[in-house]
Amino acid sequence: MLVVMQAHATEEQVRAVCRKIESLGYRAHPMPGAQRTAVCVTGNRGEVEAGTLEEMAGVQELIRVSKPYKLVSRDFKEENTVITFPGTDAAIGGPGLAIIAGPCAIESREQAFAAAERVSRAGAQFFRGGAYKPRTSPYSFQGLGEQGLQIMAELRDKFGMKIVTEAIDNESLELVEQYADVVQIGARNMQNFSLLKRAGRCRKPVMVKRGMSATLEEFLMAAEYVMSEGNYNVILCERGVRTFADHTRNTLDLSVVPAVQRLSHLPIVVDPSHGTGKRNKVTPLSRAAIAVGADGLLVEVHPEPDQALSDGMQSLYPDQFDELMTQVRQIAPVVGRTVAATSTRETAAVVSS
Amino acid sequence: MLVVMQAHATEEQVRAVCRKIESLGYRAHPMPGAQRTAVCVTGNRGEVEAGTLEEMAGVQELIRVSKPYKLVSRDFKEENTVITFPGTDAAIGGPGLAIIAGPCAIESREQAFAAAERVSRAGAQFFRGGAYKPRTSPYSFQGLGEQGLQIMAELRDKFGMKIVTEAIDNESLELVEQYADVVQIGARNMQNFSLLKRAGRCRKPVMVKRGMSATLEEFLMAAEYVMSEGNYNVILCERGVRTFADHTRNTLDLSVVPAVQRLSHLPIVVDPSHGTGKRNKVTPLSRAAIAVGADGLLVEVHPEPDQALSDGMQSLYPDQFDELMTQVRQIAPVVGRTVAATSTRETAAVVSS
Amino acid sequence: MLVVMQAHATEEQVRAVCRKIESLGYRAHPMPGAQRTAVCVTGNRGEVEAGTLEEMAGVQELIRVSKPYKLVSRDFKEENTVITFPGTDAAIGGPGLAIIAGPCAIESREQAFAAAERVSRAGAQFFRGGAYKPRTSPYSFQGLGEQGLQIMAELRDKFGMKIVTEAIDNESLELVEQYADVVQIGARNMQNFSLLKRAGRCRKPVMVKRGMSATLEEFLMAAEYVMSEGNYNVILCERGVRTFADHTRNTLDLSVVPAVQRLSHLPIVVDPSHGTGKRNKVTPLSRAAIAVGADGLLVEVHPEPDQALSDGMQSLYPDQFDELMTQVRQIAPVVGRTVAATSTRETAAVVSS
Amino acid sequence: MLVVMQAHATEEQVRAVCRKIESLGYRAHPMPGAQRTAVCVTGNRGEVEAGTLEEMAGVQELIRVSKPYKLVSRDFKEENTVITFPGTDAAIGGPGLAIIAGPCAIESREQAFAAAERVSRAGAQFFRGGAYKPRTSPYSFQGLGEQGLQIMAELRDKFGMKIVTEAIDNESLELVEQYADVVQIGARNMQNFSLLKRAGRCRKPVMVKRGMSATLEEFLMAAEYVMSEGNYNVILCERGVRTFADHTRNTLDLSVVPAVQRLSHLPIVVDPSHGTGKRNKVTPLSRAAIAVGADGLLVEVHPEPDQALSDGMQSLYPDQFDELMTQVRQIAPVVGRTVAATSTRETAAVVSS
Repeated sequence: MLVVMQAHATEEQVRAVCRKIESLGYRAHPMPGAQRTAVCVTGNRGEVEAGTLEEMAGVQELIRVSKPYKLVSRDFKEENTVITFPGTDAAIGGPGLAIIAGPCAIESREQAFAAAERVSRAGAQFFRGGAYKPRTSPYSFQGLGEQGLQIMAELRDKFGMKIVTEAIDNESLELVEQYADVVQIGARNMQNFSLLKRAGRCRKPVMVKRGMSATLEEFLMAAEYVMSEGNYNVILCERGVRTFADHTRNTLDLSVVPAVQRLSHLPIVVDPSHGTGKRNKVTPLSRAAIAVGADGLLVEVHPEPDQALSDGMQSLYPDQFDELMTQVRQIAPVVGRTVAATSTRETAAVVSS
Repeated sequence: MLVVMQAHATEEQVRAVCRKIESLGYRAHPMPGAQRTAVCVTGNRGEVEAGTLEEMAGVQELIRVSKPYKLVSRDFKEENTVITFPGTDAAIGGPGLAIIAGPCAIESREQAFAAAERVSRAGAQFFRGGAYKPRTSPYSFQGLGEQGLQIMAELRDKFGMKIVTEAIDNESLELVEQYADVVQIGARNMQNFSLLKRAGRCRKPVMVKRGMSATLEEFLMAAEYVMSEGNYNVILCERGVRTFADHTRNTLDLSVVPAVQRLSHLPIVVDPSHGTGKRNKVTPLSRAAIAVGADGLLVEVHPEPDQALSDGMQSLYPDQFDELMTQVRQIAPVVGRTVAATSTRETAAVVSS
Repeated sequence: MLVVMQAHATEEQVRAVCRKIESLGYRAHPMPGAQRTAVCVTGNRGEVEAGTLEEMAGVQELIRVSKPYKLVSRDFKEENTVITFPGTDAAIGGPGLAIIAGPCAIESREQAFAAAERVSRAGAQFFRGGAYKPRTSPYSFQGLGEQGLQIMAELRDKFGMKIVTEAIDNESLELVEQYADVVQIGARNMQNFSLLKRAGRCRKPVMVKRGMSATLEEFLMAAEYVMSEGNYNVILCERGVRTFADHTRNTLDLSVVPAVQRLSHLPIVVDPSHGTGKRNKVTPLSRAAIAVGADGLLVEVHPEPDQALSDGMQSLYPDQFDELMTQVRQIAPVVGRTVAATSTRETAAVVSS
Repeated sequence: MLVVMQAHATEEQVRAVCRKIESLGYRAHPMPGAQRTAVCVTGNRGEVEAGTLEEMAGVQELIRVSKPYKLVSRDFKEENTVITFPGTDAAIGGPGLAIIAGPCAIESREQAFAAAERVSRAGAQFFRGGAYKPRTSPYSFQGLGEQGLQIMAELRDKFGMKIVTEAIDNESLELVEQYADVVQIGARNMQNFSLLKRAGRCRKPVMVKRGMSATLEEFLMAAEYVMSEGNYNVILCERGVRTFADHTRNTLDLSVVPAVQRLSHLPIVVDPSHGTGKRNKVTPLSRAAIAVGADGLLVEVHPEPDQALSDGMQSLYPDQFDELMTQVRQIAPVVGRTVAATSTRETAAVVSS
């Protein structure tokens, strides 16, 4: 249920409505909007009894939400959610595209810094790198763990980039939350509801990747799990779905971008690296992702893809990423978007080092 | 097998090689290239015996082609195939994007002309419209048949557009071939090998739409069927594949565009109307299709979508198509493409009418 | 629309109703049932006007059919359709299981006879063999054509088997219809509506194989196409659908068997050979098909699978087919089915030859 | 790598080999077989150096395992794994079929006991019931938690059934491990590698359900994760995969049963309830599962399906389960299997209560 407050309702009136909702055993999610504040009521006890809520001061109307997703829905919040990072101009969901780049896994300080230097210089404001890797085989490289997180923290200081990295369970989330700027929940964990709830109690924005065979509704419900625990800074990420097609590792479903944007206020980015699994398809599909209206890209870039411990086949060479950024800069304005300038500071830093 | 001729081989030497191949019971497909002519040998008797071919005058080398597709392959023809239409500047596969637009089905002269006037004015050089409709139900509207073809022929004269329309069997192909500029083979017939062979003997270019669950190789083999009969003017069309995803009617697989272009010299266009099945997704996916590098678009536009006898849900309003064209014009140069100017002649025609 | 006649309606009354329907421009399909005759009205002009039909002598009630399939539906015909073959005890859809076995393609008289002798001896009453083969590549063996049909006709005389073979276009259907006992429409042609209509005008029963990505409704509509032209002897065949799973060539969807039986009166058989693509999976999935309630099996058996010109990997050795039949005989009674006895006549014939 | 010991190798020699392997930084998995003991070497440091291992006393040969799964493979253990439950005759993987039945979720003591009484009486030796439910929506009933586990523990005492129930994270696994006889890992967690590893350190057998879009290899690798931590009692469960087909909730892939049995020694059971999502399909697909060769069934039975808090649509009525068991008993002997007798003790217990 949605409690829509009057345009002139006071903060105290909103607080009173929230207290009332909590006293009934539900959870209240107040969301200030451009016109008015709405309070979403959630809880797993079925139908909410409107009761005296309707009569409270400042309440304009009660709206029953028939969709399974509530907090995620544009019914709850009409304006796009823009996720900002205090002290920087980086943002996800605003007019500027969020370019998130870096290697699949952090393998060493050298590799991470080499990647960061290049992607930062090319204009990426976000660095991606795995410290905890969900691998199909228990015998494959599983990531450097906390050491990987420490390398990324150093990297943030040096290059001024925001760090996006995956948590694979409650234990790793505990650490990722301390080091990272955005906590990534991987495709294989999109319906690990326990982890989603834990992410909903973390203080950092959460990026939820679409599961390999997740429907649009399941994708949105994963975000709803995070939001239902009080963390409203959620980013969705399309990374390809599993089909019969065998010319790419997954089938990148770009139509989900306008579909999400129609139903939800949350930002959505696209990962063409996992979405195709083939280096030579990453740039064309990145162009397509921007053209379709995505809020950003998540791209794998490795200083030496042929030596990568994981996903080398789909990682771009740094020069290819430069070229990709050039093309993205050309398409962005067509869809009313901007891209951060190439980092001259970092270029200078590199020259002097 | 591929017989590569020397750079200075004479036409008579090429003809002699072809005669030799035919005398061995195979079929010879000579293909002049920028550097040299190659002759592809096909036939279903298994391995070709090199025999005396290697020793013939003008022959440089014999190359065994291990891929199942031969004529379709870039090994056979390195340069992109550009399909031209004598007496006009319309082309498919060249630097200019091929914009093919019109209603799902021709319903009446009025409807067809209203659609043609608008899409022509907006810059489409190709008109699409179904006269023979493959419908899931035998009780649904099956198209106007030859009468529909006649309407389109009139339309070509009035608006100077090229006509693209579907043949659903040998009988309809006989007629379509007479009236149309491009013969379309629909997704449901992509493995109707009998129809593909017949299309291979027709004198018009053939557009083959990807089957709902066709792999890349099967898609290329459908084109190979057409080419194996001697018709080398084949256009491929991605129109979405069937997956578990339910937010769109099909899942548009844009990654197949660079995948086709890597392996084949044939042009490939994208149909975002069937590819999504939802009007509000057509424009974003059209932008993405151009950005990914497609050679053109196949878009359903209906003067009154709500009255359409088929596929109304996915047909654009003419005003939406105008807007789509504006966006396509902005993205085209980023990928080195041009779009035909809006038709001032037709605007004039309309104004005066 | 369904015109339900009174239990005591005379044949002349039924004929009068049919004449009236035809005079209105529709097609009438009278179907005598155990209790009463129903007349189904089809045609592609949308809603049928009940008009004076309701008032005609012998008419009990008019029922509007909301499902897209009408003739296929149990609403139209409650009792299972049993397809019989005059002069023999072979049947499809009755208590006896229909076992259809033989090689993928007829390669020679020797191969066909060797296969027929063995499958007949093991209890198969139907022989399958392709004379016209739809192949992914134009350069693969395409079948022996009419010569293959003649070999099967001989075989029918010698072994007393019914012949099931595929038609791939109107031309081949013309011939298949003359030689075969059941005309097969392959998976790739399940939505070749022109061919389905032609099959609907043929005098032999038609077996429609499910398309690789056909939904249940599309599968039933393919049968509806055949029936709408007046041929009510249709057999459905599940042969696996295309999914991401890569341990079998297709994913055999046995749940479609009870799903079809719930909605339709038509018999349905299962093809575990194409359904798995792997010889070692054919027997277990055959057992499962019988256990799930299928009306029969379509199994590939080749005297020398390793020498087969097509589909060798999925063809059983004759000894394996013997073993399969032994297991089928044991499961059949559990689901209330019988299997024809092993052919002692043929064993004798073989011994004496 | 596999270290194959000589047939007469002593236990001390096997232990010495294991110590050597551990000293090299790998993990040793000794597995006594009918003929000889094999020791599998695992660890995520890449290639194992054979070094001095080959020369050790009692070692016959070293075999490099090229498949990604090692402990799961028949190369490591040729004989079928049979999971037994001390003090009872219940087993999974032996000649007796494992019938696991009960409601989707434990809703109350009454509901659980009512279900247990009926399924036990009909011959099920295992009771399934969810205490922790992974639900698509955070607002849906999430299970009774530990209270549910306590109810099942009581139930075990009363009916002598083994308890199978799901753990959804490390916390719930801690508790499930204490109460249950088999720990279930659900389809959505099949690639929750952290949970799989934790399950590998638990003292109870683990049942891994196939993920919605898991390939055979990924399915086996999930089991490998559990085994790599030292828990060799793993049961696989096919529960349907996600495809385009819409007549069932999932598409039950019975071909995976013989596919698993060919590659692995682990038992595999089938869940026709989730596999179809429709009550009327559960019995036919259960028959098919037994016929295909599965080691057992996992079936949802609810005393009042229409009142169920989850999955009511796919739960059998107790009478339907009785009927299902009757049919299973008839098919079992055809595939060389037995089914536990109907529980007269329980019938008595019920009568006297």
